[in-house]
Amino acid sequence: MYVANNIFNATSIAIVGASREKEKVGHAVLENLLKKFNGKIYPVNPKARRISGLECYKSVKDIPGKVELAVIVVPNKIVPYVLEECGIKKIKNAIVISAGFKEAGVEGAKLERQCVEIAHKHGVRIVGPNCLGIINTSNNLNASFASQTPKRGCIAFMSQSGALCTAILDWAALEDVGFSKFVSLGNKADLAENDFMRVFSDDEETRVILAYLEGLKDGVGFMKLARRTTKQKPVIVLKSGRTTAGAKAVASHTGSLAGSDNAFTAAFKQTGVIRVDSGEELFDYAIAFSTQPLPKDDRVAIVTNAGGPGIMATDACERSNLRLSSFTPRTIRKLRSNLPVASNIYNPVDVLGDATSKRYALALETVLKDRNVDGVIVALTPQAMTDINNVAEEVVRASRKTNKPILCSFMGGIDVASGIGVLKKNGVPNYQYPEKAAKTMRAMVEYRLARKFKHKKPQQINVDKGTVSRILSVARKEGIVNLSLLDSMRILEAYGIRTCKSKLVQTFNEALEAANEIGYPVALKVVSQDILHKSDIGCVTVNVSKNNLQSAYTRVIMNARKYMPNANITGVLVQEMVSGGREVIIGMNRDPQVGPLIMFGLGGIYVEMLKDVSFRVGPLNEDEARNMISEIKGYPLLNGVRGEKPLDINSLEDSLLRLSRLTADFPEILELDVNPIKVFEKGNGYLAVDVRIILRHEK
Amino acid sequence: MYVANNIFNATSIAIVGASREKEKVGHAVLENLLKKFNGKIYPVNPKARRISGLECYKSVKDIPGKVELAVIVVPNKIVPYVLEECGIKKIKNAIVISAGFKEAGVEGAKLERQCVEIAHKHGVRIVGPNCLGIINTSNNLNASFASQTPKRGCIAFMSQSGALCTAILDWAALEDVGFSKFVSLGNKADLAENDFMRVFSDDEETRVILAYLEGLKDGVGFMKLARRTTKQKPVIVLKSGRTTAGAKAVASHTGSLAGSDNAFTAAFKQTGVIRVDSGEELFDYAIAFSTQPLPKDDRVAIVTNAGGPGIMATDACERSNLRLSSFTPRTIRKLRSNLPVASNIYNPVDVLGDATSKRYALALETVLKDRNVDGVIVALTPQAMTDINNVAEEVVRASRKTNKPILCSFMGGIDVASGIGVLKKNGVPNYQYPEKAAKTMRAMVEYRLARKFKHKKPQQINVDKGTVSRILSVARKEGIVNLSLLDSMRILEAYGIRTCKSKLVQTFNEALEAANEIGYPVALKVVSQDILHKSDIGCVTVNVSKNNLQSAYTRVIMNARKYMPNANITGVLVQEMVSGGREVIIGMNRDPQVGPLIMFGLGGIYVEMLKDVSFRVGPLNEDEARNMISEIKGYPLLNGVRGEKPLDINSLEDSLLRLSRLTADFPEILELDVNPIKVFEKGNGYLAVDVRIILRHEK
Repeated sequence: MYVANNIFNATSIAIVGASREKEKVGHAVLENLLKKFNGKIYPVNPKARRISGLECYKSVKDIPGKVELAVIVVPNKIVPYVLEECGIKKIKNAIVISAGFKEAGVEGAKLERQCVEIAHKHGVRIVGPNCLGIINTSNNLNASFASQTPKRGCIAFMSQSGALCTAILDWAALEDVGFSKFVSLGNKADLAENDFMRVFSDDEETRVILAYLEGLKDGVGFMKLARRTTKQKPVIVLKSGRTTAGAKAVASHTGSLAGSDNAFTAAFKQTGVIRVDSGEELFDYAIAFSTQPLPKDDRVAIVTNAGGPGIMATDACERSNLRLSSFTPRTIRKLRSNLPVASNIYNPVDVLGDATSKRYALALETVLKDRNVDGVIVALTPQAMTDINNVAEEVVRASRKTNKPILCSFMGGIDVASGIGVLKKNGVPNYQYPEKAAKTMRAMVEYRLARKFKHKKPQQINVDKGTVSRILSVARKEGIVNLSLLDSMRILEAYGIRTCKSKLVQTFNEALEAANEIGYPVALKVVSQDILHKSDIGCVTVNVSKNNLQSAYTRVIMNARKYMPNANITGVLVQEMVSGGREVIIGMNRDPQVGPLIMFGLGGIYVEMLKDVSFRVGPLNEDEARNMISEIKGYPLLNGVRGEKPLDINSLEDSLLRLSRLTADFPEILELDVNPIKVFEKGNGYLAVDVRIILRHEK
Repeated sequence: MYVANNIFNATSIAIVGASREKEKVGHAVLENLLKKFNGKIYPVNPKARRISGLECYKSVKDIPGKVELAVIVVPNKIVPYVLEECGIKKIKNAIVISAGFKEAGVEGAKLERQCVEIAHKHGVRIVGPNCLGIINTSNNLNASFASQTPKRGCIAFMSQSGALCTAILDWAALEDVGFSKFVSLGNKADLAENDFMRVFSDDEETRVILAYLEGLKDGVGFMKLARRTTKQKPVIVLKSGRTTAGAKAVASHTGSLAGSDNAFTAAFKQTGVIRVDSGEELFDYAIAFSTQPLPKDDRVAIVTNAGGPGIMATDACERSNLRLSSFTPRTIRKLRSNLPVASNIYNPVDVLGDATSKRYALALETVLKDRNVDGVIVALTPQAMTDINNVAEEVVRASRKTNKPILCSFMGGIDVASGIGVLKKNGVPNYQYPEKAAKTMRAMVEYRLARKFKHKKPQQINVDKGTVSRILSVARKEGIVNLSLLDSMRILEAYGIRTCKSKLVQTFNEALEAANEIGYPVALKVVSQDILHKSDIGCVTVNVSKNNLQSAYTRVIMNARKYMPNANITGVLVQEMVSGGREVIIGMNRDPQVGPLIMFGLGGIYVEMLKDVSFRVGPLNEDEARNMISEIKGYPLLNGVRGEKPLDINSLEDSLLRLSRLTADFPEILELDVNPIKVFEKGNGYLAVDVRIILRHEK
């Protein structure tokens, strides 16, 4: 049993800071509990003897019986003392509603850490601080100061914004939407999204999990848990704070393209979490997911009583990447023989402006039975002859007889209101315009696909971890952050990522020997920690033949000296010139919240200008590596376009898996760019030409 | 005075097909007129003597006085006779509500044409057929069978879908939104969107023009009119039918990428029309445009009473490409000295959960005065202390004192309802979540930019129209649809688009002579109307040196003979090999509704895979040609990336203007691809290497 679950099932609750003054939060919490909760309620307030008819205690320690949950609403400075007392009283769970902690600055953050330390010392777990509280509708536990209590339902909601909680509860009251559990996460000093996701996941009353999050406390744990949870029930997340660019100076291509938002998008996608962009979408989706079955595929039938709305719905489906069903001949026959001649019997089915509810019902039931139909959108406009309530009743009837989703768009205001009421009461979602219905249907299709997807563990690969450890430990000792090209190449080689032949030399004679061994033409690159943009100042030269070697060698050294007379020059790298092949880039940027974000893309201008790249959070498995490659727009360039031979995509997959393994094994690798990798025709592999590794040494 | 305007100002109206049977449309129309209309109303029905207390006439001819408008609601077959009688009675305007015309098939279409002929013979203008009617709120004229009459307002609406009209009117009744004029366009047999846009444009009561359109009757006229109208007032169009791919077999790259949807998008963009994708957006925008001033620029301030909604609003602004204002020191000082310490005084301004309406007012007024603020989004959640109605009042007060737009997002349901009511009643738009507020603000910013934009006529350029006329007239005579490469090249040259040197030859000796003149290496291409994909079957060979000329010549001819022994071979084209330069494509596809759609893009895989192309409806002016080039994603490739020299963008602009002129001058050019054009470094121009012209000969 999870700790967090105990909070929802507490049967004895102390409200520390309970108040009889109506405008105080300590009063609102007590009143919410008193309304319907059946367990024991103990107000705690040293200044009162009775509050709201209940005996009041000076401290939780004075409460005679067992207490399972403390709700704390005292001034911030007092919270540590209260937690200490809770610990002594063996109260294992506390909701700290009080504000004035991390959100209020440095002092508050210190106070918050102090609270957590005290709590953990006693084995007390905390929700909050700086939160609205929690609600469990199944046992009438409303331990919050929300002004409204939601009705019982099957949607669980957690939110990092208390203000959004109040807005949602207010909206739910208007829309008559029910919740199973409702949690305001506050500052997440202790318990956080993962703890509650676990509760929601196991909760039989919960069919849909919603979350408003501004960040993840434990991204790796979240991904593991989400992967499992989304197999059971949909998890819909509004992740805000897309703009929090963060102050980190980014040194690599991958780093500059990654950004935390791409990291979240990748993490959610990989784990089947449905990401939404607005509160509207969050609830549009929640209502459909909580009431309608999932579509088997993306083929949608539209039933409408007018041409215009039919076209609007068709456009919406196309924009949402849904297919319009092609009906079977049987469906066509049935529609033709039962609908008026002027009706459109193909998709979208137009039952015409004078459609009775029976005609709607016939069309709807006929298309629902069609094996080429996975879901239906019913569009309606209030025309003179339209019997809106009866149409709604027929839609409800049809929805009870089918295992396919039906989403409605009854367009209008006053005339359609009561029909929409009939739909909502009976669990058929309605959207003001077909656009949202289509978008929601698309989300359902995608969730179904994601749920089917089996996540496999990456296969074992042989790597030489020892060599990398040694290189990194030297770098750590020497405080090196930008690893040298040669060391970076050695690291790649140790993990089985093939690099072009390179040799570090100190003299021209060594260079000649190295070039003879590597084969001409070669490239020469000055290696120096002091010189960053080597090619800009003539410290790199390519396509050097045997004849030109001496002059080229002299030139790069001279240019380095000219640029920085005192530069510490490690030597000159003599490198194999890789001819042919197409340039790609693979890389990694470590996101502070979700971990190593792996990137793949075509090299050169594709990555720089067109940003045609894909991301996954590592460690990758084979499917993910493959999909990363195939989902970029420029994929045909790799897979053979215009009669060209396909390139060695399998070997690229392998390189991604090895890169993933490398960055999983060595968390001190902060950023990594292999750019370019040249990939050759199928069977001929690839070669990493240049690589950049940036380290972060733990202090 | 425009004809269409007379319809709205009619003072005497005949309802032909007026009925006393309540469920009949002819009854509903009469009742709607009787409600408030002050002019003369004449029911016409041969079977009745009085209807609704009015004398009824057997025919319009029997009406004693002058009649300015006939509303026709008789069965479709009778409509021509009624129109004939209207003509005789000198009724100059008719609204044909009856259905059963073009929308009902071939017979109906014939009947519709007959109606138009009769009407035009008598100088009668028609709205419809198959429509709901029209409404003018300023003179209480409701000549429709809509079940609801909108209140007076400043939004004019026209719709090609009558069903959508009923939905909108129903919605407007709920939301208390007013309209100036309301038109159901029906089949647009005679009067269409342009006629009504003209009326709306001149109408003093109309401040915003809305349209739901499925197509344009006169695209060229629309563009001309829209360009003028959008300088006066916003025109917001929901253009549906994006999926109507059309059956036209497309032969060119441009054709396959163009599509009618890109044509509309280009036409709207070029004329300042705001295109929306859903009914929701249509009205989200309409309400803001009709009530709020336009922002001067895209710098937005957010005022909120909670962190979460503040972040949501910030995200929304970023996604909508709006900038968050950086406040002046003065604003910061004022906020700091007047707001509580815990408030965020930077943007978004968080006035905290316990904010009174006065605190909201202070923050709002302070940021409105900041010269770095162009518009404000006010976010509110219903927290315990929030005095929602008073905040709404303060927002209204602030909005009256400023010339900057304020959009609100009061989030919630029941608790916020009355505050939202205050906002709406006083012309401050509210959106359920900040997302829509930001999107709407963006639309306002864009409209403001578009309105400022001055459309210049293209400059005159010298072209040799005669040569093109002669080539096309020969092609027409010979029934040639795919113009030969040589003729196509000659056409480009005649219009000053430089092509690479080419010569058509019949023998090897001629080829040798041509190649000597052009200079080696050359390309050889078999010219034959019978062989389409020449390069696929070895009828094109490139990089031919003097030594290889003979063998190459023989090979291409042999390959052609092998492929099709009886092929009619015009000859072999000897062409200059163009080395260097970057490949781009320019082209044109003639859209049946909006006209020549000009395309620009990078060549090769950029156009094929990445579809990185831009479109404009011709004729282009200089600004449009320049923007077409600069707006593609790959533009840096032309403008000099990574230290490369910029290419000759000016010469490309010139080529686009010439292409535009060519396609404007010769409407029989249906599709045209110049692919590739090789563009060289600045000052060195470009060369068209290959061109394809497809003609349509009028029958």
